[in-house]
Amino acid sequence: MRATLMYGAGDVRVENVPDPVIKHPTDALVRITASCVCGTDLWPYASMKPEDGPARMGHEFLGIVEDTGSEVTTVKRGDLVVSAWAVSDNTCEFCREGLHTSCVHPEANFWDLVPDEGGQAEAIRVPLADGTLLKLPVAQDSALIPSLLTLADVLGTGYHAAVAGGVNERTRVTVIGDGAVGLLAVLSAKRLGAEQIILMGRHQARTDLGREFGATDVVSARGEEGVEAVRELTGGHGTHVVLEAVGTRPAYDQALGIVRPGGVISRVGAPQYEEAPIGFGSLFRHNIRLAGGPAPARAYMEELMPDILNGTIEPGKVLDATTDLDGVPAGYQDMADRKSLKVLIKP
Amino acid sequence: MRATLMYGAGDVRVENVPDPVIKHPTDALVRITASCVCGTDLWPYASMKPEDGPARMGHEFLGIVEDTGSEVTTVKRGDLVVSAWAVSDNTCEFCREGLHTSCVHPEANFWDLVPDEGGQAEAIRVPLADGTLLKLPVAQDSALIPSLLTLADVLGTGYHAAVAGGVNERTRVTVIGDGAVGLLAVLSAKRLGAEQIILMGRHQARTDLGREFGATDVVSARGEEGVEAVRELTGGHGTHVVLEAVGTRPAYDQALGIVRPGGVISRVGAPQYEEAPIGFGSLFRHNIRLAGGPAPARAYMEELMPDILNGTIEPGKVLDATTDLDGVPAGYQDMADRKSLKVLIKP
Repeated sequence: MRATLMYGAGDVRVENVPDPVIKHPTDALVRITASCVCGTDLWPYASMKPEDGPARMGHEFLGIVEDTGSEVTTVKRGDLVVSAWAVSDNTCEFCREGLHTSCVHPEANFWDLVPDEGGQAEAIRVPLADGTLLKLPVAQDSALIPSLLTLADVLGTGYHAAVAGGVNERTRVTVIGDGAVGLLAVLSAKRLGAEQIILMGRHQARTDLGREFGATDVVSARGEEGVEAVRELTGGHGTHVVLEAVGTRPAYDQALGIVRPGGVISRVGAPQYEEAPIGFGSLFRHNIRLAGGPAPARAYMEELMPDILNGTIEPGKVLDATTDLDGVPAGYQDMADRKSLKVLIKP
Repeated sequence: MRATLMYGAGDVRVENVPDPVIKHPTDALVRITASCVCGTDLWPYASMKPEDGPARMGHEFLGIVEDTGSEVTTVKRGDLVVSAWAVSDNTCEFCREGLHTSCVHPEANFWDLVPDEGGQAEAIRVPLADGTLLKLPVAQDSALIPSLLTLADVLGTGYHAAVAGGVNERTRVTVIGDGAVGLLAVLSAKRLGAEQIILMGRHQARTDLGREFGATDVVSARGEEGVEAVRELTGGHGTHVVLEAVGTRPAYDQALGIVRPGGVISRVGAPQYEEAPIGFGSLFRHNIRLAGGPAPARAYMEELMPDILNGTIEPGKVLDATTDLDGVPAGYQDMADRKSLKVLIKP
């Protein structure tokens, strides 16, 4: 079959690889019908060393079950299923608490760390299929496919930001980042009833979509100027919640400037730094809380899917370009160049 | 009158200073009948440079109102009152949310930063008396005075740790630090119903008091060994909540090792560091949250006082030594030497 491999920074290729096979009785084989490129795929695309490659790519996909191991009970051949971006058993003590990204099963893992498998491909072996996959009640040519695909990661990640930040109807929210996660964090804050949603971003097509998703204000300035603009919009004190959907140190520093005393910075952009200020001069003085982490997308699927099925939300709008597998390398480059927001792949 | 001044590290003196006077119509004058030395007083006692002194000391006190400004309405001459360790108006938007340590009133401040006033003295001018003071319904010679004095800071701080950490009856808790705040964090976790309370400390008289306050386990080891011991006590995963009542980087690092995935580190020990790990390898990977800050002691007074008055809790037990003003310099040294846990001052 054909699959996407990254050989190093800027070097993505689509090549023939061995077909996946069932290895464990809890596995399923899925023929992928829709996949996409994630903003986090752009980190290695910017910096991966050739000696760390080639790596199979892709952790967001849906498709048709082709075969299942003997112990799989919740999905069967012919089902249309979506996968979470992390493999989990959905039964351990952490999964039961909704923290699937900390599943303790030995096979639990982020898809990006599962060797020889990737979602930007024609097919995939899914470990712990009962825990990782969810059956979708639509046909594979449904117009809802792009939105249902976002359940795999990007919608769940935006929603996790808002949930971990404790967004509710009494909350003013700032979202830092107009990428797909940031825009779906806006949609999620809106869904949870936020009183005010300020989107910080400078790419107008994206911030326009952010307004459509529920942003009440857009701030295009960054750094100190951006902080000042948000403070002006909030009576001087900043917002109760800051959803940080970028992952850089400047984004964290911006969050520190924007968050209200007693408020919370909820991070879902994978931090590209390890140490940062958390002492008296930053978090501590005004009881600022820090929350977030890798989103347990699986935990939110059942909650969010009905809103997609009944048309209340259309998160698939973040997928603004479509390609087949041949177009994946160009899709990476378009996203890196910010020509595309997020690329849908139809293998 | 006589008051305590710190001239530099290890140099505490009791000297004659001008008597305080009413300056603003919202002030009250209080003749101090009980005060104490705080663990945080030991930071400057260890490191203060002479050019930064002399500084008036003390932010925990109770006493008798001697005079009030014309606008003071909630306390009057002759009332026995306790002060919070931070001056606040108790009416601004942050105070109304229970975050008195972020009060926006121009006179709001930590007592330690109010010039020419301090609680380790015979008397004090209290700004924003209506917001800062609370009338106590006992006589000044009541046996409950030590416990009521802890409302000023140390009990409120331990309680804030537990509240900010979200302790409830389904929570396993570790408390790092067997100082007065740590021990009252134990008492607070117990009050909130914690299922398991592990106290990390190596001073047996203190950990014995911790057991009396509700600790179910005591771990005397520190660092990696301490982390391992806590993990053994918790089925390998650590505790949902870590109450960090020390403020050093090693204490924070220990908290990182002990906290359960999805759990929270609640800090009330003023951090003696600014940058620390919060990236993928520390907080982010397992959705660890960070909470805490300067305790809004004023917010908790009405809630906690009834438990003291009816004998349910006896937080005053952390005051294990008593002195008059002359004995204050020796009291500082005894606390620095860990001969005393916390020194009560009767001016």
